[in-house]
Amino acid sequence: MPANPSSLLILHPRLNVYLKPFVLSLPHFSSPSLSLNRARRFPIPRPPFPISPTRNLSSLSSTSVAQSSGENGGGGGRSGALSPPPITDVVQKIDVNPPKGTRDFAPEEMRLRNWLFQNFREVSRMFGFEEVDFPVLESEALFIRKAGEEIRDQLYCFEDRGNRRVALRPELTPSLARLVIQKGKSVSLPLKWFAIGQCWRYERMTRGRRREHYQWNMDIIGVPEVTAEAELISSIVTFFKRIGITASDVGFKVSSRKVLQEVLRCYSIPENLFSKVCIIIDKIEKIPLDEIKKELKSTGVSEEGVEELLQVLSIKSLAKLEEILGSAGEAVADLKQLFSLAEKFGYSEWIEFDASVVRGLAYYTGIVFEGFDREGKLRAICGGGRYDRLLSTFGGEDLPACGFGFGDAVIVELLKERGLVPELNLRVENIVCALDVDLQGAAARVASILREKGQSVDLVLESKPLKWVFKRAARVNAYRLILVGSSEWQRGMVSVKILSSGEQNEVKLDELE
Amino acid sequence: MPANPSSLLILHPRLNVYLKPFVLSLPHFSSPSLSLNRARRFPIPRPPFPISPTRNLSSLSSTSVAQSSGENGGGGGRSGALSPPPITDVVQKIDVNPPKGTRDFAPEEMRLRNWLFQNFREVSRMFGFEEVDFPVLESEALFIRKAGEEIRDQLYCFEDRGNRRVALRPELTPSLARLVIQKGKSVSLPLKWFAIGQCWRYERMTRGRRREHYQWNMDIIGVPEVTAEAELISSIVTFFKRIGITASDVGFKVSSRKVLQEVLRCYSIPENLFSKVCIIIDKIEKIPLDEIKKELKSTGVSEEGVEELLQVLSIKSLAKLEEILGSAGEAVADLKQLFSLAEKFGYSEWIEFDASVVRGLAYYTGIVFEGFDREGKLRAICGGGRYDRLLSTFGGEDLPACGFGFGDAVIVELLKERGLVPELNLRVENIVCALDVDLQGAAARVASILREKGQSVDLVLESKPLKWVFKRAARVNAYRLILVGSSEWQRGMVSVKILSSGEQNEVKLDELE
Repeated sequence: MPANPSSLLILHPRLNVYLKPFVLSLPHFSSPSLSLNRARRFPIPRPPFPISPTRNLSSLSSTSVAQSSGENGGGGGRSGALSPPPITDVVQKIDVNPPKGTRDFAPEEMRLRNWLFQNFREVSRMFGFEEVDFPVLESEALFIRKAGEEIRDQLYCFEDRGNRRVALRPELTPSLARLVIQKGKSVSLPLKWFAIGQCWRYERMTRGRRREHYQWNMDIIGVPEVTAEAELISSIVTFFKRIGITASDVGFKVSSRKVLQEVLRCYSIPENLFSKVCIIIDKIEKIPLDEIKKELKSTGVSEEGVEELLQVLSIKSLAKLEEILGSAGEAVADLKQLFSLAEKFGYSEWIEFDASVVRGLAYYTGIVFEGFDREGKLRAICGGGRYDRLLSTFGGEDLPACGFGFGDAVIVELLKERGLVPELNLRVENIVCALDVDLQGAAARVASILREKGQSVDLVLESKPLKWVFKRAARVNAYRLILVGSSEWQRGMVSVKILSSGEQNEVKLDELE
Repeated sequence: MPANPSSLLILHPRLNVYLKPFVLSLPHFSSPSLSLNRARRFPIPRPPFPISPTRNLSSLSSTSVAQSSGENGGGGGRSGALSPPPITDVVQKIDVNPPKGTRDFAPEEMRLRNWLFQNFREVSRMFGFEEVDFPVLESEALFIRKAGEEIRDQLYCFEDRGNRRVALRPELTPSLARLVIQKGKSVSLPLKWFAIGQCWRYERMTRGRRREHYQWNMDIIGVPEVTAEAELISSIVTFFKRIGITASDVGFKVSSRKVLQEVLRCYSIPENLFSKVCIIIDKIEKIPLDEIKKELKSTGVSEEGVEELLQVLSIKSLAKLEEILGSAGEAVADLKQLFSLAEKFGYSEWIEFDASVVRGLAYYTGIVFEGFDREGKLRAICGGGRYDRLLSTFGGEDLPACGFGFGDAVIVELLKERGLVPELNLRVENIVCALDVDLQGAAARVASILREKGQSVDLVLESKPLKWVFKRAARVNAYRLILVGSSEWQRGMVSVKILSSGEQNEVKLDELE
């Protein structure tokens, strides 16, 4: 049923301003030719008129016209344009929050996200990486591995309408591996690819963790040398430096899965249990040590082996590791090379050896690393490593590969902790406003001219008092205000006011820069 | 079971190159000091050595060492690092394609996508719009309307692990409406927001249509005037012009839902059936006319009414519409104002009145428009309109609103048709290469120095023949090649070759710009 105009005014208080003419005292605006310091009457754009939809409907049948007209009560103005939907539709207010664990990005959050992504992109560009992306919805099979990873338990999976098991990607690497296999010999190695994609994990929302985050990935496919890992860590360090994070804020713990592997080999642990053991060890700081030991034993490691394993994992010095494992093995050789390269790259102070780092993904095979905040308050900032065997688990030919993932959540927490979140304001070059409703077309013309020159213009789309326009100009952080007034317009001019200085000039339309 | 080294060579032919030293004749490289025109032996980065994981494992038990060592066959080099996963894991090759109806973005596709999005963003910026985003996964309720829309039938919905009905968003507007309600009085109107987001529709894949696409949206919340619609169309025209599309390639069909509304009012069609009628009419070009008529009658429109309705819908001239509807109604007044503003904005030649345009979404209430290719080969390129009543359907207070959606699919088809897809190549400023494996750290140092100056560097991470390096330089479209050779390095110099001209110089490390 149609609402009557007065109830509409209550329902839509914001619309008051458009429904009746009003008179306002204007703030002083020092343009002699504009005579703005007198009160100015703002006409409404279109006077209310009775709706008579049947007038001139000469070629249409006039059946039920009276009833129709009666139903709409001959109501005035735009308020009668469409009746509100029946009450039954509006009773229940929807939940205005995004689904649990997800985020909206209002302009201020979006500016921060864009700033972060821009830094991800810029660093990736400086390292010669090419951007790629994959579907956020992938076949579930791509993420199912047999190692009891946290990521598998938290898979956001379901059956689609075609009865296919699909999942919102929890990470990007398996999709990348899929694409590399698909491309086969058509690409020249090495590939240096980066991606910034949204990833999903269905977690219990107990720790304030979200169910989605964006992740910056950089991957190098086709390089077996540790130079690849060194290059990746260098890119993250470069990123940190760009955004003001120093080596006293964060560091990288580095180890190699080959350390564990060499130890396990001594205890006849079958190779195919290796990743399971890694997943268990990754939980060392999350669950009680007894639980870890129990889980390790259940995979077949002897009690003695478990103790020795935990002893090796406590090593924080490469020299000590070498003492135990010898210098001939790959674990020590890889790590020594990485630390030597770090020195050349110039980020030695950022990295340290820590045998307990194994990372929580099943597919790592060599160097693994993890960015952490030195105050120890936050979860891992980023992490990655070598995964030379991932492609064959999908039936492809293996290629040497390494990469990292860098989420958009923990880094923002860190930036907040350090007071390093940049002030990112909306900034518009021009705000253009007609001083008269008849000049709205002229203002549109001015806006078009400026935009053709690449300038940004916030065009005032309604008749508004100058006080409102100044407030708007401040909100959009405009550099200058361009007023289109009748007398100037007739002379092909507009009034240009630099808002920071208050300096004001008349400028010819074709000289507007 | 571990593979023996020779079978590994067969399994991983790409790796051959890393497994044995090789001798190559190098292309002539005219640096006298580098003496590169002699054949150069590339050492492998690390000589194969027998794995003896138990050496120096003094503190570890040596149980089963012999067995372990035997299992790994004392194999050489990196190939013995990890055994391949058991055969059972590799038998089935996964589907290397992205799920049906979805896309991967390899670097070349990603460059096109980034180019498109950059143009979306740049135009939005020029119009003073702020970027926003919402979760790709929303509550299903947000998209369920009662009008038989195509979009509802194609909803990609499912139950999550918490038994909530959720859906991959098929469009962005409902999320935007949700956020606007959530923000309430905390935001100053008008809001000018844009978003670029992925949207999902579960369609039968019969027409080569995909199940996901990216959509550029621009919305203005809080402006009841037609100036808002005029501004939105202006932004799309600006976008088209930027990418080389002209008014002879595309046009906009414009109408208003108020046209239909004014006609329906004559036939006593209840207001709440209005959107259903619109949805039926939107299918006029897709299903037979008889079917349309039948569906219209089933909503309660008389036979006579249906005929008159279809007659009005065939009108392509605003003058003719005015003749029939009269000039007092809002439909005609709005449209006249829009056409008048189009002239001032400078895009008259792009737009035409077409009463048959109603758009397929239930929530439009006023002006609706649709971008189409003039050759008539493609589906609608973009579309939008006014939706002043959407917020109240979610239990919020209505606000005047209009916006459009612009997909990333049809526009690319059009660009291809017109030969307007830009050539977007990877472009790296420097390729840096060590001439000796011992200088890889030095090369890393050079790369770091250049990157600190904001330059992009593709660092060669392996020992490769110069021929390979030149090929790589061409592939990454490098501006210059920087070679780090032993004798120059000792003098603090590197060799810099401009690849387009062949010009080559020695440059001091600290003078490298």
